[in-house]
Amino acid sequence: MRKILTPGPVAIPDFVWEAIQQPVIPHRSVVFEEIYSQLLNSLRYFFQTKGEVISMIASGSGGVESAMYSLFLPGEKVLVVDTGKFSNRWVQYAETTGLDVSELSYEWGSVPKTEDILIKLEKETPKGIILTHCETSTGALLDLEEIAFAVKERVPNCLVVVDAITSVGAVPFYFDDWQLDCAICTSQKSLMNPAGLSVFAMSELAIRKLRATFSGDYQNLKSYLTFAQQHNYPFTPPVNLLFGVKAALAWFQQQKLPNVWNQTHQTAQYFRSEIQQLGAKLLAKSPSDSLTAFYFEQGDHQIIKQKLAEEYQIEISGGQGPYKGKLLRVNHMGETGIVDMQEVLSALKSILK
Amino acid sequence: MRKILTPGPVAIPDFVWEAIQQPVIPHRSVVFEEIYSQLLNSLRYFFQTKGEVISMIASGSGGVESAMYSLFLPGEKVLVVDTGKFSNRWVQYAETTGLDVSELSYEWGSVPKTEDILIKLEKETPKGIILTHCETSTGALLDLEEIAFAVKERVPNCLVVVDAITSVGAVPFYFDDWQLDCAICTSQKSLMNPAGLSVFAMSELAIRKLRATFSGDYQNLKSYLTFAQQHNYPFTPPVNLLFGVKAALAWFQQQKLPNVWNQTHQTAQYFRSEIQQLGAKLLAKSPSDSLTAFYFEQGDHQIIKQKLAEEYQIEISGGQGPYKGKLLRVNHMGETGIVDMQEVLSALKSILK
Repeated sequence: MRKILTPGPVAIPDFVWEAIQQPVIPHRSVVFEEIYSQLLNSLRYFFQTKGEVISMIASGSGGVESAMYSLFLPGEKVLVVDTGKFSNRWVQYAETTGLDVSELSYEWGSVPKTEDILIKLEKETPKGIILTHCETSTGALLDLEEIAFAVKERVPNCLVVVDAITSVGAVPFYFDDWQLDCAICTSQKSLMNPAGLSVFAMSELAIRKLRATFSGDYQNLKSYLTFAQQHNYPFTPPVNLLFGVKAALAWFQQQKLPNVWNQTHQTAQYFRSEIQQLGAKLLAKSPSDSLTAFYFEQGDHQIIKQKLAEEYQIEISGGQGPYKGKLLRVNHMGETGIVDMQEVLSALKSILK
Repeated sequence: MRKILTPGPVAIPDFVWEAIQQPVIPHRSVVFEEIYSQLLNSLRYFFQTKGEVISMIASGSGGVESAMYSLFLPGEKVLVVDTGKFSNRWVQYAETTGLDVSELSYEWGSVPKTEDILIKLEKETPKGIILTHCETSTGALLDLEEIAFAVKERVPNCLVVVDAITSVGAVPFYFDDWQLDCAICTSQKSLMNPAGLSVFAMSELAIRKLRATFSGDYQNLKSYLTFAQQHNYPFTPPVNLLFGVKAALAWFQQQKLPNVWNQTHQTAQYFRSEIQQLGAKLLAKSPSDSLTAFYFEQGDHQIIKQKLAEEYQIEISGGQGPYKGKLLRVNHMGETGIVDMQEVLSALKSILK
């Protein structure tokens, strides 16, 4: 049996598969609305919010871009913090859609300093800031609580929009307490489902700022929100995937979030310590517990990855962008535990011998 | 066991479920590329094209809107034919995104006359025409071959963009022979899969017209095409859904398209004849074989639909927009056959008694 340790897609547990396979139901029905209503309530727990939550058919990038499209109009100033492949994508998306982009760039593996953001905010008052909580290409985690607090203190109306794709469900995340305005996550990460669904939490401030357009505008979260308030969907929903996500959200409620975060933390801490004993270095100065990006000063990362897959049936990820072929990335999200880490570490040890 | 006879989502056969449940594989891998390459080849057969095909995570509306976004720039003239709920959505999308919209509207249940389109094309030379082959809200099928031929004869560079969501795989469809430029379909219709994937065929002319933007632009089909040519994906692909769609496409190849079209035609013809015997009228003047939209001059459609669901465990769809509560719609796509029609007809007969 292949072991999937890529930081998304994450291995799908049996209980999720069982849920997904339930017979499809028509979505314009009371039964669907009851199920979706329960899902949305569990999603509130997942994001730690009492506010509005929605879902849409989209991969993570589609989700973040839809949030940016829905919340900002061309010409509006947004501050985008760029620390790697995905956060850089949000810079490019903002530029492409005609936003007035103020960029704060760091080298890969770094996280933004709160004081740098505050200096920016002395000179400009953006309509929003786009933060990537955990940058999946580097495994670095920024201090979202501190940054969001600083932003809100300086510019209370600045929307704090968070790519939480590889953070929520894996590390502490408190949407309401941290005064976030929009957070985006996706099904194939800590939610342990096939890719295809983006989920969102939205503050009152964000909702008031949603772009007004016609109801069939696929990218506009306003339609999803209007329908979600009736526990329904503006387009054909991915019914079976919703069954799976609902089961994963119930798992988080049963386990309790702090226990899951703790389990992920133990797994990550164990892996970080052991992999460094094997001579690896971590790319992230402030590593997230959701995944570890590491490299060896010597050795061909492509070959290591390939041997893990072919000889040990363990799938991990390589580097992206400037780190293509120069990095390895291992997942700690979902049900992944220390036993899985021991397995990949033992295989790595044999390969490196 | 519930019987799903909604014209999307369509019932999912066991062989599709079995395919979907295969363990997820990392998408940056040779194994994924082999599978996706096979899928794309089967997709060429499905659309009857030797040209380029792609897929993206999106429901059908997301797919059509992405095609329009990718092919036309703000200010460009497009002719949009509006005959019901979905084709009207493309009018609204075109207006929202700043296209110079020329609209040709018909009442629900009608199909466009080729001469009306030709009259339009005498006065204007649009960059594209948006046609909804089968309008799912009315069950009407337009003569795509004739219209596409007329358009191409008059304005050879006019892109013929086709919402083929409830047509391809159910009724004859020849992408290359009919000189189409872009056709969009989605996984939960004749492909008998969960919702979540849009698939596209694209002509050389369409490819040359694709919007140039950065690779992470989620809505731009150019990225999907560039990656598909390497048998890969610009974003995280819905791996398990691709397994399911690949299995459905293989089914079409085994059955042979003309046999599937014929089977769907027999099913539709039988249902249309029998339902009229029960006193129903068809909404579409030119009915598609993919679904039938019908109504009774007397009787509460909402109650009929509800009784079918509650007393007979048969799910069909109601009307949309102005026909909400005034219409019923039954699917003939996928593996649906005459036996299923007999079952729903017999239940309808008992309810109407």
